[in-house]
Amino acid sequence: MTVGQLKRLLIGSPLRTRQLAHEKLLKWKALAIFSSDALSSVAYATEEILLVLAVIGVGAFSYSIPIAIGILILLLVVTLSYRQIVHNFPSGGGAYIVAKEHLNTASSLVAGAALMIDYVLTVAVSISSGVAALLSAFPALIPWKVEIGVLLVLVLMILNLRGIRESATVFAYPTYLFIVSILLMVSAGGFQIWREGWHGYASPAAGELGDIASWTAVLLILRAFASGCSALTGVEAISNGVPAFRSPAPRNAAITMAWMSLLLGTMFFGITILASAFGIGPKEHETVVSQIAEHVFGRGPLYYLIQVATMLILFLAANTSFTGFPQLSSIIAQDGFLPRPLAMRGDRLVFSNGIILLSVLAILLIIGFGGDTHALIPLYAVGVFLSFTIAQWGMVKVFLGQPQRKFLQMGITAFGTLITGLVTLITIVSKFTEGAWMVALAIPLLVWIFYTIRSHYTEIAKELRLDLRAQPTKLKTKVIIPISGISKLVLQSISYAQSISDDIVVVTVGFDDEQAAKIRDKWEQWDLDIPLIILRSPYRTLLGPLLKYIDTLEKEKEAEFLTVVVPQFVVKKWWHTLLHNQTALLLRTVLINRKDVVVSTIPFHLHH
Amino acid sequence: MTVGQLKRLLIGSPLRTRQLAHEKLLKWKALAIFSSDALSSVAYATEEILLVLAVIGVGAFSYSIPIAIGILILLLVVTLSYRQIVHNFPSGGGAYIVAKEHLNTASSLVAGAALMIDYVLTVAVSISSGVAALLSAFPALIPWKVEIGVLLVLVLMILNLRGIRESATVFAYPTYLFIVSILLMVSAGGFQIWREGWHGYASPAAGELGDIASWTAVLLILRAFASGCSALTGVEAISNGVPAFRSPAPRNAAITMAWMSLLLGTMFFGITILASAFGIGPKEHETVVSQIAEHVFGRGPLYYLIQVATMLILFLAANTSFTGFPQLSSIIAQDGFLPRPLAMRGDRLVFSNGIILLSVLAILLIIGFGGDTHALIPLYAVGVFLSFTIAQWGMVKVFLGQPQRKFLQMGITAFGTLITGLVTLITIVSKFTEGAWMVALAIPLLVWIFYTIRSHYTEIAKELRLDLRAQPTKLKTKVIIPISGISKLVLQSISYAQSISDDIVVVTVGFDDEQAAKIRDKWEQWDLDIPLIILRSPYRTLLGPLLKYIDTLEKEKEAEFLTVVVPQFVVKKWWHTLLHNQTALLLRTVLINRKDVVVSTIPFHLHH
Repeated sequence: MTVGQLKRLLIGSPLRTRQLAHEKLLKWKALAIFSSDALSSVAYATEEILLVLAVIGVGAFSYSIPIAIGILILLLVVTLSYRQIVHNFPSGGGAYIVAKEHLNTASSLVAGAALMIDYVLTVAVSISSGVAALLSAFPALIPWKVEIGVLLVLVLMILNLRGIRESATVFAYPTYLFIVSILLMVSAGGFQIWREGWHGYASPAAGELGDIASWTAVLLILRAFASGCSALTGVEAISNGVPAFRSPAPRNAAITMAWMSLLLGTMFFGITILASAFGIGPKEHETVVSQIAEHVFGRGPLYYLIQVATMLILFLAANTSFTGFPQLSSIIAQDGFLPRPLAMRGDRLVFSNGIILLSVLAILLIIGFGGDTHALIPLYAVGVFLSFTIAQWGMVKVFLGQPQRKFLQMGITAFGTLITGLVTLITIVSKFTEGAWMVALAIPLLVWIFYTIRSHYTEIAKELRLDLRAQPTKLKTKVIIPISGISKLVLQSISYAQSISDDIVVVTVGFDDEQAAKIRDKWEQWDLDIPLIILRSPYRTLLGPLLKYIDTLEKEKEAEFLTVVVPQFVVKKWWHTLLHNQTALLLRTVLINRKDVVVSTIPFHLHH
Repeated sequence: MTVGQLKRLLIGSPLRTRQLAHEKLLKWKALAIFSSDALSSVAYATEEILLVLAVIGVGAFSYSIPIAIGILILLLVVTLSYRQIVHNFPSGGGAYIVAKEHLNTASSLVAGAALMIDYVLTVAVSISSGVAALLSAFPALIPWKVEIGVLLVLVLMILNLRGIRESATVFAYPTYLFIVSILLMVSAGGFQIWREGWHGYASPAAGELGDIASWTAVLLILRAFASGCSALTGVEAISNGVPAFRSPAPRNAAITMAWMSLLLGTMFFGITILASAFGIGPKEHETVVSQIAEHVFGRGPLYYLIQVATMLILFLAANTSFTGFPQLSSIIAQDGFLPRPLAMRGDRLVFSNGIILLSVLAILLIIGFGGDTHALIPLYAVGVFLSFTIAQWGMVKVFLGQPQRKFLQMGITAFGTLITGLVTLITIVSKFTEGAWMVALAIPLLVWIFYTIRSHYTEIAKELRLDLRAQPTKLKTKVIIPISGISKLVLQSISYAQSISDDIVVVTVGFDDEQAAKIRDKWEQWDLDIPLIILRSPYRTLLGPLLKYIDTLEKEKEAEFLTVVVPQFVVKKWWHTLLHNQTALLLRTVLINRKDVVVSTIPFHLHH
């Protein structure tokens, strides 16, 4: 099987450009497709709050409810503010585009960097968390935690290189399965609390909380809040996807967004309440959701349903990045801030390079952090809230620019900007030492890379610019044919050389006198009207003497171009390559760095 | 730092061919240099015997002494027989060369395969065993067993790529350090036995040995013997190295060989006796030699001296393969049975490819067998004894061919052939299921590969053979210039094209009508007398339409050669490569498979 065939098998046949069509989505389907990222975060948000509180002490678990309420308020603010964006950017308002159009390049690049980082983290966090759900149900798989995560990313990569349709109905099922099963668990759990009473966390032991210096406690509570904010990642997805909605698109999108926030809030708060009521804390190899499910349903079919649904929606959530990241990086690449290969669609109409880049980065994160959701969380959310802030700030600028001031809407958005800006700050400061510093470093670094790339392209474009008055001139070329012996290869090379120039020289490198004499005799016997130059090589290397000779010719400037003719064996079986000295490849690699040396590769097809 | 600079730093500057000189060795130095492989095997031979006997039961340990006596007899036979080879092959009598000259190609290839496999195993076994000595002294390093082994092989690889002089005096020290320290341990231990009496192994418990079916017991005892035979690996080294001795070389070599065997026998038997006297058996993380040393000296300076000396001589033993393997494979490659790159000396005068191949194979073995000497031993010795047998058989043939029959010498060699042949058989059969099957499979496989490679080269040589009456003919070439836009690149390409042909066509691939129209307008504005062909690409790929167009041209047969001119950016910094679509590379890779399509790469040097 050739590489091409393997590619076809895994990736599929190429698709035509006009197959890039859009299907308009009904609200129920759009909800499923755009909100898997946001909704899936309830699988880990509560647990991450509790994990931070555990540092203070088990007694601090009871703080989880006020923290959750804070997050609900934040959710409300962001939702209201983003409904403004939905109404005002019907063509989809990603933070990068909003900032580019209404703020300035610098802030759009900051938003772009923040978003790119968060797309990668979404994959790493969602996959790690999905694997955690799987391992809670099947502890036998624990030793393969990282391997399973990497495998899942690779599966997503292949699916996306094939170009799965994100709008396929099949993607709606896991989202609804998750919503229904979590709501079922929350209701059943609520019923249990009503019947059996609130067991709850142990009250703080006397002095337990007092042991911690108050500033440290405040920092930890802020950190718990910041960790919980990971629940909000992905709520902007609908605002980016407005064009995919049926008309009236903005209205339908706004309604869908409200529903999503309601579902997200209910599930997240429900899970937090249940954990609190049942006195459940984080465990090493079992998720909090798994513990709640076991408490409510026992390890029966419903328990496994919840684990599988959680795993599936997290897989879908990771998949959303596989649409978002390549699209964003292709837009940035088109603007010249990222390498151009990222802007090219592959033959399955997807941005293959972006998909591969995302997969590689996510896999590195999963391996680097041992597939541990908890270790990744401090890096997460920084980028999301930064891009929230920038997008809303852009919205405020739009309102300011309008002749008729819409004060209410503007007020909502401005308030949203302020709050999300504040949360960004809290997230960075409270989780700084835990890993947020990496993101705080990576964002400016990425922006610097963006500018460096752009300036390179600008310079290159200047260098390549052609004055159409310039006309090509016919120049002289001297042909050099390096040979190692006299064979049919040489005959073919000389035939070609004669067809392109009258100025030909054959060169050979002699490792010892005997070999040199032998080749000279044969050459004289052949009796062509072409000079043979024999170079001596004390180091048994071919390249050194040849390069020196070419240097001399370049200095003599007999011809404007030097053409080196290099025959290359084309073998029948791949392993035959190993049997031949790869002189052609070596020559090409080295000679390409000489100015005005053209390397002409002549294929010689071996029949054996 | 460039790759070239890194190479210089690690490997050193190139050396001239005439630096390949020989220094003639004194006996004491020759002993140190050629016998590290043989002598070092006492570090594990006794332990391997005991490990097999442990399967029968601790009571069976007392069999180790009769087994050791058997091995001593074998050593005597092999030494006497090989002294004949030393005297008759003063130019060095490796089994491959002896068989090639005096037997036939097939048996020389079998010997070659056996030797190559054993060189690789020598590295893997010696390094693993050296690491075991290290870990016995420093158990804290146990978790990094495999990593340390791999690292040591890499160190050897770099040292040998630099071209260390195997004859350097510095290599004599560890060998003598080892000999002296082991003889010291054996004497001190002997003195202890004399003073404190023989503690010895527990006598077999009643029925313990009887529990095992007699055939199984016989097989196990044979296997213990075969494992102990690993002590003999490397005794042939002196016979290969005769030319390095001072004159009279054969006589000096024979004397050195006798000394080596005497030292080897004494140390091996001494260690076996001490283990027996002190009742020492194999332990998981401590070698038998380490246990004996601890018993004799306690964990004092002398104990650590022995561990370090053991480690060093095993490292040297592994190093001997780094001379032997590349030399042997270069000889086989010169005969056309291995890929030609293995026959080429690198610029440090060493067979770099052979050194790298050996390192890779040894590393794979160390990783595959978890750096466990015991697991590797069943594979070992098969090849050694097979090559012993073939070399001596060749020697017998030499004696048979001489007009004056030297019956005594011939008798000794014939007896040696018989015995080593028998041991080969015992080794294969008794350790077959333990791993010897791999070697029994690998040897014929390697021989088959040798023949396949040779037949490929023969065919290629036939294809390339040139009839000197054939003369090159000037042929017509049509130049194709693929472009993606009109820039200075195109100007340069056309200038070159005009200098080699009058038949030029410029081709571009249009992804949409707009882009196509734009380029056509600009082309018409430029107003050259060259046709522009616009190809359409529904799949947004450049290659498909271009290849189709070239196919059409090939069918039309307007010209004998098609030259495709491909400009290639030469960037200032390596990472700039990532910023440009690697179309040149892609085109070259694909076009090379077309018959009669010459790819000419024009460098375009970017100044930025």
